[in-house]
Order: sequence, then structure tokens, then C-alpha cells
Amino acid sequence: MKIVIIGAGNLATHLALALQQSGEQIIQIYSRTEESASILANKLAAPFTNKINKINNESELYIYAVSDSAISDLIDLDIAPDAIHIHTAGSVSINIFNDKKRNYGVLYPLQTFSKNKEINFKDIPVFLEASSPDVLRILQNLACKISDDVQVINSETRLKLHMAAVFACNFVNYLYDVSNDIIIQTGLTFDILKPLIRETADKINYLTPYDSQTGPAKRFDRNVIDKHIQMLDNQPELKVLYEKLSQMIFNKHFHQP
Amino acid sequence: MKIVIIGAGNLATHLALALQQSGEQIIQIYSRTEESASILANKLAAPFTNKINKINNESELYIYAVSDSAISDLIDLDIAPDAIHIHTAGSVSINIFNDKKRNYGVLYPLQTFSKNKEINFKDIPVFLEASSPDVLRILQNLACKISDDVQVINSETRLKLHMAAVFACNFVNYLYDVSNDIIIQTGLTFDILKPLIRETADKINYLTPYDSQTGPAKRFDRNVIDKHIQMLDNQPELKVLYEKLSQMIFNKHFHQP
Repeated sequence: MKIVIIGAGNLATHLALALQQSGEQIIQIYSRTEESASILANKLAAPFTNKINKINNESELYIYAVSDSAISDLIDLDIAPDAIHIHTAGSVSINIFNDKKRNYGVLYPLQTFSKNKEINFKDIPVFLEASSPDVLRILQNLACKISDDVQVINSETRLKLHMAAVFACNFVNYLYDVSNDIIIQTGLTFDILKPLIRETADKINYLTPYDSQTGPAKRFDRNVIDKHIQMLDNQPELKVLYEKLSQMIFNKHFHQP
Repeated sequence: MKIVIIGAGNLATHLALALQQSGEQIIQIYSRTEESASILANKLAAPFTNKINKINNESELYIYAVSDSAISDLIDLDIAPDAIHIHTAGSVSINIFNDKKRNYGVLYPLQTFSKNKEINFKDIPVFLEASSPDVLRILQNLACKISDDVQVINSETRLKLHMAAVFACNFVNYLYDVSNDIIIQTGLTFDILKPLIRETADKINYLTPYDSQTGPAKRFDRNVIDKHIQMLDNQPELKVLYEKLSQMIFNKHFHQP
């Protein structure tokens, strides 16, 4: 299948590589900035452009893997009206294509992508939605080549899924970052937290997250909590966050014993 | 070495098992509740008691693996004055033993323990502190039998380490729990988040947590954030948490580009 990738960010990069490796033909990369377009295009040995009016008009599939706010403007362009146009965003409804494209859909890979971290796309759950059964069939064929876990969900479910992912990934990673900052102050290295982080993520394969909960907040051990909060005296935002999360953990375990 | 374990909770259980497997002799388990004492004692084929006045007086080492608030009362007991007495708490200073014991210390394993989840103790960083070089040498010999990563730190550093662990483990696990609750509402299962959770935890072995950050908060994509917050309308506490974490992530990445 001939594919144009609109976007050259983290997701666009990993998706384009996975599609090419599975035998699809990436015929062009478009990105607003020439540099990022060329970097991804080089990885794929594919042509690229940073000019909207130079986007290849003869592809079968256009994948809009750009920020949510950029999708709307890009699908307004009058490109290849008979092709399939899909976006990859968790929180953008399929209806964004209404009255703008004939054949369209969504291909949402539920994963965190960073350009410099390799990843096995086969393990990533991919969620599809399509404007018609015919388009869905084509997207399913495509998605099954790159992922072993392909499911069909609607836009409302995808939005909830995306929010759950923000908690389980983006917010979790921020807490890693906070713990890194604290560790660095002690002169120790972040490495000593890695077995703990690994085990915390592994445990939920054996116990529910609810049953996995440990620590002073669960017991509401005020003595420990106060010592920690005192150390955060010069970081008022973290102090509030620590208090809030501790209270929420305690409330959940106290009310659902 | 003859060891009495005071406590039969998650940490006591895993530590006692690791010590016995490394050839140490657990001669008694004490716990306030007979049931938990007997469960752990059965695993070790060791005697147990739930009576303070029946704690074996002839051991070489007493390990107080109980909640922080219980340590103080238990070390007030006049047991085996020449033995070594240690606690296992992240946030309790070694000074708690001052004027109460002659030989004492701390052995703090940095990990999350649940009784029904097996764990390889060898991978767990263990942090020691001791009342004298002699006691330290004995604790080092002991700790090196159960862990491949033994370090000496003072009480102040241990307290900071514990706080970092609360962020990297307890708070992280709570966010898993929140994401689980959201997923269940969609009719999907928590399993679909597991590749994402795994990758988020794995990524920090290759990138710093700061460089690993992705998602709408980092870009402060108000459009996505608003959609998510709107879905949390009937959960005001989660709504505040979502707002707060998003703001903190954005501030950190905006001010340190």
C-alpha cells in the first residue's frame, strides 16, 4: 500500500518504520519543519517535503500523525479525495473528518514513543475506527501486519483510553522524574530506584493495582508522611502533591477495605 | 547467625525467607497477632509467639520489621542487651535506639513487598547504618548474603531515599489503580494498558525520566487536557489531580527546555 506520513514526531517515526518493515511503501514524509521531515525520510530512504502544496496527491493512504491541534488544518487540504485518510490521536473524534473526506478512520497505537528508544511495535495494542466496513477491513489488514493486538473501538472509548494512558504513563513518568530529582540531592544515583520501579510495574501482572498498594499513605502513617512533607518545605508544589496523593490513597483503601 | 524477627508483615516475610535461604537461622517470629505470626512461622518451620514476654532472649540479632509507630514500644523491651538490634524502616532514624540498646543498626531494603508476590532479594538494594564499625561489619556480612547491592548511608539520606521511593512506587501504583478504574468503565480490561506501563518503566533505563516525558501535559495541549478534565466532572478529586500534574509537567518542561 502506498502511504504518505503527515508528521515526523515520535509516533510518526515509530509508525512509519513499523509500516515500512512490514512491507508497506512509504512514498513521502511531510513535516512543517524541513529538518524533522528529512531526518525521518532518511531513516526510510523516502522522499520528503515541508511544503503543503507539494504533498504527494497519488497515495492510497494518508496518516496524520501530528499534534491534535494541527490535524484539523491539515485535513482541510484538498488532497487525494478517493484515498483513505486516518489520524492517530487518542482524543480526537473520527468526526473531525466529517464532510472533509470520503474514506477515513483512526489508527491509535496505545504506547509512549520517544525517537531514541527502540520499541517492538508487535506488542503495542492498536485501536481502529473507520468510516465504513470497507475502510475498516483495509485498516485491519494493515494494522495486523504491524501489531498482534488490534481492536475496534469508538471515539468515546478511545478518549477514555487516552485519559487512562495519561495517568498510567505520562503522570507516572513525571513521578519518576520527581524521584530522580530527590535522589540526585542525596548524592546517590537514580539507578538505585530502578529495581523498585521495575518491581512496581511488574507486580500488576500478578496482583491488581489496588492489591499492590503499599507504603505510608495506605496505612496513613502520619508520622512518616509528616517527615516527608517537612523535607518538601522549600518545594510547595511537591508538598501539595504529596499530601493530595497520600490522602487519595488513604481514602480509597479506608473506604474499600 | 541466630535471628528473631519482630513482625510478620510483607517486609518481615520476604526478609525472613531471604535470610533463611541464605543459611541464617530464624529462631523465632514475634507478631502481635497470632495468626500472622503462625503463617510466617509455618513458611519458615520456625517457632512463633504473640506474647511480648515470650520473645526468645538468646538470639544474636533482633530485626524489628514492624510499622514505624510500633518500633519505639518494642525496642523499649529489655531483651538480650548484648545482641544486635536493627530496624528496617526508611524514615526512622538510627537514633531511636539511643540509650535503649548497646549494639544497633538499620537494614533498609528499598523495595515494595506484597506477601503474594515472589521477589528475587538479590536484586534489591539494601542500605545499612550501624552503631559501631563492628556492628557494621556484621550487618555487611549478613546483607551481602541476601543482596548484591549493599550500601552504607546515614539516616538523613535514608529518609530522602524513602520519600523518593514513595513517589516512584506508592504514588505510581496509585496512578495505575486510577487508570484501572477508568479502563474498567469502558468495558475494556486493564491488560491493554500493560504494554504501556511496561514500556514507561523500561524507558528510563535508556533515557532520563525528563527526556522520557511524553503526552499532552508536556506540550500543554489545552484541547486534549480539557477533554480529559471534562470526563472527570463527576470525580472532583481526580480532576484536581489531573490539572495539578499537568501543570507541574508543563512548568518543568517549559522552564527547562
